[in-house]
Amino acid sequence: MQIELHTIAIAHNGFTDKFGIPRQPLQDSAIETRIVFEPEFRNPDALRGIEGFSHLWLLWGFSANKTTWSPTVRPPRLGGNKRMGVFATRSPYRPNPIGLSAVRLLRVEQTTKGLALVVSGADLLDGTPIYDIKPYIRYSDAHPEAVSGFVDQVDYPKLRIEGISKDEQELREILEQDPRPAYQDNKDRIYKLDYKGITVSFRVDGDTLYVEAITKNK
Amino acid sequence: MQIELHTIAIAHNGFTDKFGIPRQPLQDSAIETRIVFEPEFRNPDALRGIEGFSHLWLLWGFSANKTTWSPTVRPPRLGGNKRMGVFATRSPYRPNPIGLSAVRLLRVEQTTKGLALVVSGADLLDGTPIYDIKPYIRYSDAHPEAVSGFVDQVDYPKLRIEGISKDEQELREILEQDPRPAYQDNKDRIYKLDYKGITVSFRVDGDTLYVEAITKNK
Repeated sequence: MQIELHTIAIAHNGFTDKFGIPRQPLQDSAIETRIVFEPEFRNPDALRGIEGFSHLWLLWGFSANKTTWSPTVRPPRLGGNKRMGVFATRSPYRPNPIGLSAVRLLRVEQTTKGLALVVSGADLLDGTPIYDIKPYIRYSDAHPEAVSGFVDQVDYPKLRIEGISKDEQELREILEQDPRPAYQDNKDRIYKLDYKGITVSFRVDGDTLYVEAITKNK
Repeated sequence: MQIELHTIAIAHNGFTDKFGIPRQPLQDSAIETRIVFEPEFRNPDALRGIEGFSHLWLLWGFSANKTTWSPTVRPPRLGGNKRMGVFATRSPYRPNPIGLSAVRLLRVEQTTKGLALVVSGADLLDGTPIYDIKPYIRYSDAHPEAVSGFVDQVDYPKLRIEGISKDEQELREILEQDPRPAYQDNKDRIYKLDYKGITVSFRVDGDTLYVEAITKNK
């Protein structure tokens, strides 16, 4: 039994590099994602009343090169050396590669491509296809008492950032989350991260990330 | 752009009649739904660690006769006389007819069809196809401060139930939610509801539901 999903919208943001995507959503993030509807779904009526909701759910597609499913995966959160069942994780290696993210709705914008939704807290790569947008309903969706298995047992401490100015808030947010590929810890290695047309070179020593260079991409 | 979803599991419960499905999820419900995996996804490894989570997300399919999308819908919650954009509702009339429900994980059971997940609080019809199961992650999914638009502004008061015994807890839960088709209010009309092989006949006068008969289906 199968059904087909149609892309209803595309997410646009500065995350052109998957390593820049926050591993934990940023609750009060300066980083905006713009949801632009595909031509056939560019109908303002379909958004009537959505501005009354502070949060939305996005159902979205994992990138095409990650669609092979695996019964077990190694969550980065567990250091990459412990296997968990894929249904106990939010890993992309699922039978149906659909992601689910709660985002904050900042505003509805009139654009040349119809109404767009501007959200924050989205852990999506630029260009991600969106399959559904649902309102976040507090009484059915918010379970602050929930116990979250292995996720509750480990923390991602934020890194201290050296070498960027105070007003580069978006970049700071991304770097604080430790954008290194999982399971790497070599203090001399220089990593590069693309974000919004710039490349950031950095290294990480202990709990501090040192920005070595910021260059504009051509 | 399209992707195909495969049914990974089927939900089994007593909701053989869509009018019995709670319109608001029942937080401490006695009503259990059993998620039974399809043969190709009957792999116990895929569930490793899931028992550490108190809540799960189910992504599921709305029934086939409801798949035409409509930009606006009339939420039962608004009395059926006000149109809202479909993306501001959880209505089935969406471009991609996928439902999303947070459920409580009661236990993982060994069955003759492999491991099954027993959950409560599911607002699904018996036989509903499941496309994904994800852990509920408190830090990213629980937003108790969320503002939920028109949903916050209206209540479904529970009905008082007359005519069933105190130990019929499941039936009581269902009837309290007012299982009449939306927008009907005729105190003399007898409604019938199928649940777990019985048919309940009832009528509703004001805030009280009177059970007139309970008969076993053949």
